[in-house]
Amino acid sequence: MSLFGRAARLSTITSGAIRRRTTTTTSKTTRQCIFYKRYRQLSTKTAKTAASSDSWILELQSHLATTEVEFSVNKYELERHGRGESYHPTETPDVVVCPTSVDDVITIVQFCAKHKIPIVPFGVGTSVEGHVCCLQGGISLDMKNFVNMEIPNMEDDLLPDPIATVGAGVTRNTLNEALRHTGLQFVVDPGADATLGGMVATGASGTTAVQFGTMRENILAVQCVLADGTLVNTGTKALKNSAGYDLLGLLCGSEGTLGVITEITVKLHPIPENVMAAVCVFDSLQDAAQTVTMLKLCNIPLLRCELLDAMSVKAFNQYQEQQPNNTATKREEKPTLFLEFQAPSMTSLEEQVQMTQSICQDYGGSGFDYCSDEEERKALWAARHSLYYASVKLRPGAKGAILTDACVPLSQFASVIQETAQEIEEKGVVAPTFGHAGDGNFHTIIPIGEDDSEEYIETLHEISNNIVLRSLAAGGTCTGEHGVGYGKTKYLEQQYGPGAVHMMRLVKKSLDPHNIMNPGKVIPN
Amino acid sequence: MSLFGRAARLSTITSGAIRRRTTTTTSKTTRQCIFYKRYRQLSTKTAKTAASSDSWILELQSHLATTEVEFSVNKYELERHGRGESYHPTETPDVVVCPTSVDDVITIVQFCAKHKIPIVPFGVGTSVEGHVCCLQGGISLDMKNFVNMEIPNMEDDLLPDPIATVGAGVTRNTLNEALRHTGLQFVVDPGADATLGGMVATGASGTTAVQFGTMRENILAVQCVLADGTLVNTGTKALKNSAGYDLLGLLCGSEGTLGVITEITVKLHPIPENVMAAVCVFDSLQDAAQTVTMLKLCNIPLLRCELLDAMSVKAFNQYQEQQPNNTATKREEKPTLFLEFQAPSMTSLEEQVQMTQSICQDYGGSGFDYCSDEEERKALWAARHSLYYASVKLRPGAKGAILTDACVPLSQFASVIQETAQEIEEKGVVAPTFGHAGDGNFHTIIPIGEDDSEEYIETLHEISNNIVLRSLAAGGTCTGEHGVGYGKTKYLEQQYGPGAVHMMRLVKKSLDPHNIMNPGKVIPN
Repeated sequence: MSLFGRAARLSTITSGAIRRRTTTTTSKTTRQCIFYKRYRQLSTKTAKTAASSDSWILELQSHLATTEVEFSVNKYELERHGRGESYHPTETPDVVVCPTSVDDVITIVQFCAKHKIPIVPFGVGTSVEGHVCCLQGGISLDMKNFVNMEIPNMEDDLLPDPIATVGAGVTRNTLNEALRHTGLQFVVDPGADATLGGMVATGASGTTAVQFGTMRENILAVQCVLADGTLVNTGTKALKNSAGYDLLGLLCGSEGTLGVITEITVKLHPIPENVMAAVCVFDSLQDAAQTVTMLKLCNIPLLRCELLDAMSVKAFNQYQEQQPNNTATKREEKPTLFLEFQAPSMTSLEEQVQMTQSICQDYGGSGFDYCSDEEERKALWAARHSLYYASVKLRPGAKGAILTDACVPLSQFASVIQETAQEIEEKGVVAPTFGHAGDGNFHTIIPIGEDDSEEYIETLHEISNNIVLRSLAAGGTCTGEHGVGYGKTKYLEQQYGPGAVHMMRLVKKSLDPHNIMNPGKVIPN
Repeated sequence: MSLFGRAARLSTITSGAIRRRTTTTTSKTTRQCIFYKRYRQLSTKTAKTAASSDSWILELQSHLATTEVEFSVNKYELERHGRGESYHPTETPDVVVCPTSVDDVITIVQFCAKHKIPIVPFGVGTSVEGHVCCLQGGISLDMKNFVNMEIPNMEDDLLPDPIATVGAGVTRNTLNEALRHTGLQFVVDPGADATLGGMVATGASGTTAVQFGTMRENILAVQCVLADGTLVNTGTKALKNSAGYDLLGLLCGSEGTLGVITEITVKLHPIPENVMAAVCVFDSLQDAAQTVTMLKLCNIPLLRCELLDAMSVKAFNQYQEQQPNNTATKREEKPTLFLEFQAPSMTSLEEQVQMTQSICQDYGGSGFDYCSDEEERKALWAARHSLYYASVKLRPGAKGAILTDACVPLSQFASVIQETAQEIEEKGVVAPTFGHAGDGNFHTIIPIGEDDSEEYIETLHEISNNIVLRSLAAGGTCTGEHGVGYGKTKYLEQQYGPGAVHMMRLVKKSLDPHNIMNPGKVIPN
């Protein structure tokens, strides 16, 4: 099974698990988490829109009568589009609209601007902080028809530019599939098979960010439609550009609140010929974290660098045992580093791995193991890719989880995780932690069961909240890669102080004065 | 002589050359370039300010009476602060003000907001597109007192974070000097010894961007004061952050038009132990450019990758010959690549160089030469670092030059430079081209002599203009690293279309509604 296949399957399972939880949430008081209570109040704002929805939807349809734009008010489609893979409660749109051209998007946005109707852009719904939730109803703008792809032509006499221009609805696996014959790949890997439009909007990253950076470092140009219907082309096909404000950066991570992204030009990288994965076990998180810092200080170019705490390894072992025909070796339940390297030649690669082994040993690492075989590497990374599901499974009866995402300076990485683990243990909760150690970014997965008491759920949210507070105190951020959505708006002022939030509000208001673009997201109310 | 030493010396010489030209410009019609004619009109706006300048300066001084803020209306200081290293005409401020604390900056900005007085932040004036020119008079805000430095503590038991937090007035050489004992360095190298505040404001880059990226990829946090006096802290000390809009990106490259940058947290990188430089000569620019693309497609991690056209090599040779006690070998006057590599070990390094040599030979490269000796490397790079001055010297009687800065997709790099060289030859002009080939970024240096006719100067500006038009047609940008200043505002709409400029205007207006922050820069009037 390929890594991509595994990721796609995981994404389906996860979304199923969350769907069930969400459905229950709306019918049982005990399921109403603190976020839900807060945002129910917001959703009363949709009353007016909902009452008049038939008429405005019909009017919009008549505006687009000569186009191929699809509309849907099918209950399942509304539910699916309002949810994403978030653990936050779902609020559905009034209608799902699927434009087929940039002109359609402009028409829809101008109509919404005139009638003050919210628009929430939608890719495939893999975001996890409630980004696609339609807090104030309105339109879920599904970009599934934006699937154009312009990829390097390898038949040219001249070597092509390693870049691709794609529609916002193209997923990263689709792009990489199309690129297969070119020897190039798009490298940002958030796990899920997200759309490129969604990945720009969320400012996605993942396991490869330690070497290649996040979406921001991997996009060259973005086309988008602003809230007043203006079509904006920003960036160029050149690798550097200092002409005017960095609108590309502003749009990257704007989570649909500043405009609708329609097309993206991304950088591509050669598929490495020589890749090696390695594993090493440590007695403490501190030793593992120090090893990572030392690897970076020694200029070892890490392709991936993931840390699993002891409970994550336990989750992995238990998950593996439950698989049919399991033959995997049980891993030692200790802090473990999963590493990956690439180099222009096998000699350089082997040298990198040997230097790494030596540094690991300096910090008490044991059981250092490595492999270059593709299948073996895939099996190794499957451990990392199945960790969300494995963590949920660790707690019998759990059907979903609170998914946390904090990032701290490398020097604080071990102590923040250690303190989190201690709180988790003291409160008698099951919650493994793993993450992108090379960036100081970690996720604690806090499983929730169907029969959990309100008090227990409050404890879980308390742990999640404390992870953020601890990370902020350590000089870090409330979110390293998942974004703000509506789950983390309340932390922004605490993280930056009032000045930065004031500045964000000014920018938002200037570009979306009527707050029609994904209202309730990013900026605190 | 060290690379840094050479750069610093060059900077002095350059600024001298430009100063002379500028002085002449204000007295002779023949010196009035097209930009100057245009911006003289703007400068009439300063009349009101100038007339009342004594009173407002005295009022501001009284506001700051209890502080250590320095004021200067010394003619030389006003002239120096309005100029920078730009070839564009100088407009002086009414007063130079040197705050010593963030509170001072807030007081000054609030005063200016109330009285609608322009503020132009000033580092050491190494920008080249007229960024520090006070088009509407007002205050040149000199950040020379912001020299605090927080660097990694190597005495700690824990390995420190490879980051530094510095005041906006710290120059990159000062920072690197302070870091020397840590084994770490700040890697962005624009040539000049610019301040970190200026480098953020300009979004600087240079020869190392091909490996480490530009300023945007090397800053983690920025503190700034907005036009309404709000203090903004954005970013964190974590390596990744997706909490809210990318204000860091918005400020980086904003050229003082959105706020006054007071403090910056930058990433540091280990000083590589194993470094090797190499040179290779090609029959055509196309061969050299294809070599660069192939090196990137083969995953060879280039630390620097510079291309000199034949005329640049000629300029270098001639410059060397004119040096006292010259012993340098004359280089073949053909397109030449200057490369640099680093690796965790000598084995890997040698392998990189061997692979590079083999790829160079595939594209007809000859005279491949390499060295790891530090002194030899420095001598090699001195060629690159003296190129601006060498280019000016190539034309007897020239006292300065139009410095161009375009960036195009790698596949277009050779043809754009080739077409430029052809136009230069056809028009009988002396103008070498060199640049950061790994990024597709190049500079054509077009020397201007004191006795050049108005017609000839128009021809030079025509060449400069055509470089931009050619680069835009090739999918590139009017500026790869120097920024817009007021020299390139006219190209923005042509580059992006009206939508992006509209978006930039909205952002500017929201953050600086009275246009007091560096008015006339970045955004076209």
